[in-house]
Amino acid sequence: MKDLKGACIFGQSGGPTSVINASAAGVFIQALSEENITAVYGAAHGIRGILEEDFYDMSREDPEQLELLKTTPSSALGSVRYKLKNPDVDDSDYKRILEVFKKYDIRYFFYNGGNDSMDTTNKISKFLQKSGFDCNVIGVPKTIDNDLFGTDHCPGYGSAARYVATTLMELYHDARVYDTPMITVVEIMGRNAGWLTAASALASYKGAGPDLIYLPEIPFTMEKFLSDVRKVYEKTGKVIVAFSEGCKDSDGKYIAEMGASLSKDAFGHAQLGGAAAVLAARARDEFGCKVRGIEFSLMQRCAAHLGSLTDVMEAFAAGREAVRAAVSGITDHMVAFERTYVDGLYNCSMKLVNLSLSANTEKTVPREWINEEGNFMKDEFIEYAIPLIQGDSHPPYVDGLPLFAKLRKVQAGKNK
Amino acid sequence: MKDLKGACIFGQSGGPTSVINASAAGVFIQALSEENITAVYGAAHGIRGILEEDFYDMSREDPEQLELLKTTPSSALGSVRYKLKNPDVDDSDYKRILEVFKKYDIRYFFYNGGNDSMDTTNKISKFLQKSGFDCNVIGVPKTIDNDLFGTDHCPGYGSAARYVATTLMELYHDARVYDTPMITVVEIMGRNAGWLTAASALASYKGAGPDLIYLPEIPFTMEKFLSDVRKVYEKTGKVIVAFSEGCKDSDGKYIAEMGASLSKDAFGHAQLGGAAAVLAARARDEFGCKVRGIEFSLMQRCAAHLGSLTDVMEAFAAGREAVRAAVSGITDHMVAFERTYVDGLYNCSMKLVNLSLSANTEKTVPREWINEEGNFMKDEFIEYAIPLIQGDSHPPYVDGLPLFAKLRKVQAGKNK
Repeated sequence: MKDLKGACIFGQSGGPTSVINASAAGVFIQALSEENITAVYGAAHGIRGILEEDFYDMSREDPEQLELLKTTPSSALGSVRYKLKNPDVDDSDYKRILEVFKKYDIRYFFYNGGNDSMDTTNKISKFLQKSGFDCNVIGVPKTIDNDLFGTDHCPGYGSAARYVATTLMELYHDARVYDTPMITVVEIMGRNAGWLTAASALASYKGAGPDLIYLPEIPFTMEKFLSDVRKVYEKTGKVIVAFSEGCKDSDGKYIAEMGASLSKDAFGHAQLGGAAAVLAARARDEFGCKVRGIEFSLMQRCAAHLGSLTDVMEAFAAGREAVRAAVSGITDHMVAFERTYVDGLYNCSMKLVNLSLSANTEKTVPREWINEEGNFMKDEFIEYAIPLIQGDSHPPYVDGLPLFAKLRKVQAGKNK
Repeated sequence: MKDLKGACIFGQSGGPTSVINASAAGVFIQALSEENITAVYGAAHGIRGILEEDFYDMSREDPEQLELLKTTPSSALGSVRYKLKNPDVDDSDYKRILEVFKKYDIRYFFYNGGNDSMDTTNKISKFLQKSGFDCNVIGVPKTIDNDLFGTDHCPGYGSAARYVATTLMELYHDARVYDTPMITVVEIMGRNAGWLTAASALASYKGAGPDLIYLPEIPFTMEKFLSDVRKVYEKTGKVIVAFSEGCKDSDGKYIAEMGASLSKDAFGHAQLGGAAAVLAARARDEFGCKVRGIEFSLMQRCAAHLGSLTDVMEAFAAGREAVRAAVSGITDHMVAFERTYVDGLYNCSMKLVNLSLSANTEKTVPREWINEEGNFMKDEFIEYAIPLIQGDSHPPYVDGLPLFAKLRKVQAGKNK
């Protein structure tokens, strides 16, 4: 709806990234400049902050700190993994959100997250429409997993990919120091899509990366893995394997499950990790040489010191675009990226995709970008990924250490 | 001996660091400019390259690549963990080294490494003296462990410390994202000295670091650990623990040993790792909340993208100083750092310490720099460490990824 006047609220949801705060900066800086936006709220811990009237008045923040958000990792407002119920079964949360929106005259709702969060955004958008409450709802994409549908790539991916590729290049050098056989198995995040693990191929493209790459897109067998490793091992005595935590065998069983029991998060997703340890132990048994299992763990999603400038700028732009679109009257959409090449040079422009499209639809790595053997990336992937890691972004350094944003968080919710 | 004319050979030994190649650059660039040095050799895999006549002619390298070594992690020539026998028991290796030195007229020997490598250097130096073969021998220190005796600090430590502190600041932000209890246990390298784990306190000094820090200098008990964690947990629900892989209980048993059997390296040192997993499992049992065990693994010693400029410059200077000292007639010494404060500003100057002094003597963290409880660092440590992480050093980036040196490695040993 056009010429809608009122407050806006923004929330961060799901696993943090290096650049989710850059999108927040984009939303806040743009929203604070819009005439039709009468107040700018930041929700504490996403949707939970809305339900509990726990949110901050972002106009009270120091503009310098908002600028610093661009290079501050994690979710400055706090995030949440809260699954809204199906409104046909239980609409109490939705009614509560509507109540809060009415109370604070919230006419713009921006939500930053991945698949699950876009599902949340979509459900809220549809409920508000059904209720006849005018509120423009725009999703802002983010995920290091890069698996959101309808967008060429996701904010957060480029920086995580740069971390993965750079760190693997360093590990490659480290692993070649001794003139003795060594196998290194590196576990990389990605629940169902192998985009981030595939980024390890960027290191190989530079001549210093993994020999073998396993994505969840290809069913995993231990026999094939060991025979792949053997081929490299017999040739060079040095093997580096990049391995997605989400790899499963043909029965859908995670490799990590062979090692430890799995717990589940609020969305019922298995909490993964431990695949590197399982594979390292197996390789040690098989080859009897030194084997290192390495997990990039949380570091891969919060390494703002190794951000991709392209990613940071695009994440910021996505936040601004969400506000601009909403103010221009658009609702029920997610900001998405479209890639074009101008004179052979990468160019990223914004578009809007319907929320229902992006909600809960996962985009996996195309089979034709993976080699026939299913253990390495083809050049098509390199061409796709390389523009996304361009430029060096890092926080300002004071005393040799990063200076991160510190928000005042002036409470604006009347319940707190 | 002064006015000694002949070839020089340089070798890298022990675990690599981010800046061991910066010292190599210092040695090579200086040696290539010295009139009295007739040939500059780089030994493949340290002492093994000398024994096997496997070494490179460094004058054949592109000067640009030698310059790039300053920001290339790991050991470009290859390293080794080879323990020379006691010459009184078996002097065959020493005789072989003398034979090679005579064959190639090697009159300058530079060796870069930690405690064990300085022991090797010392033994060779003494044997050459005893044999009446004129050869000036200078050790160049390196170790992320910072445990070399006779020097204020060691090249490699500052960069590893900067990695540890920066990464912990990022993890601190990541760990605070959800409004649910969480314990994070981070395992940091250091076999017998806690210097690198102590560097995590730099993150706390910036307001975003661990709550508890455990060093090998203090005997570890699980009861005290759990009670320390409980105190923080009950107050904030978020606990970050920095933990040295070298922590031992009062019986000298490594914490990691509770989890897995230990293998030993060539020096008889236990191969550590796994303490984070052991402690995370224990904390999970005790508190029933989400617990993450994280190992900084090899990343902490090869993260040249997060180098300390101070460290890189000092490492380079140490290499140059070794050559200058040797050419001026000094032998049987190791380059060491002396810290002075000029108008309150940190200043690092070079000195030389007797090789026998630094060989095999470990310098641990002073007890008075650790708090009384034995679970955190005092300000004295911060004052010591902060000058060592100043300045941002990283390799040049091409396509968003680091450009590392690639040596030609033109063989100069006649056996190969």
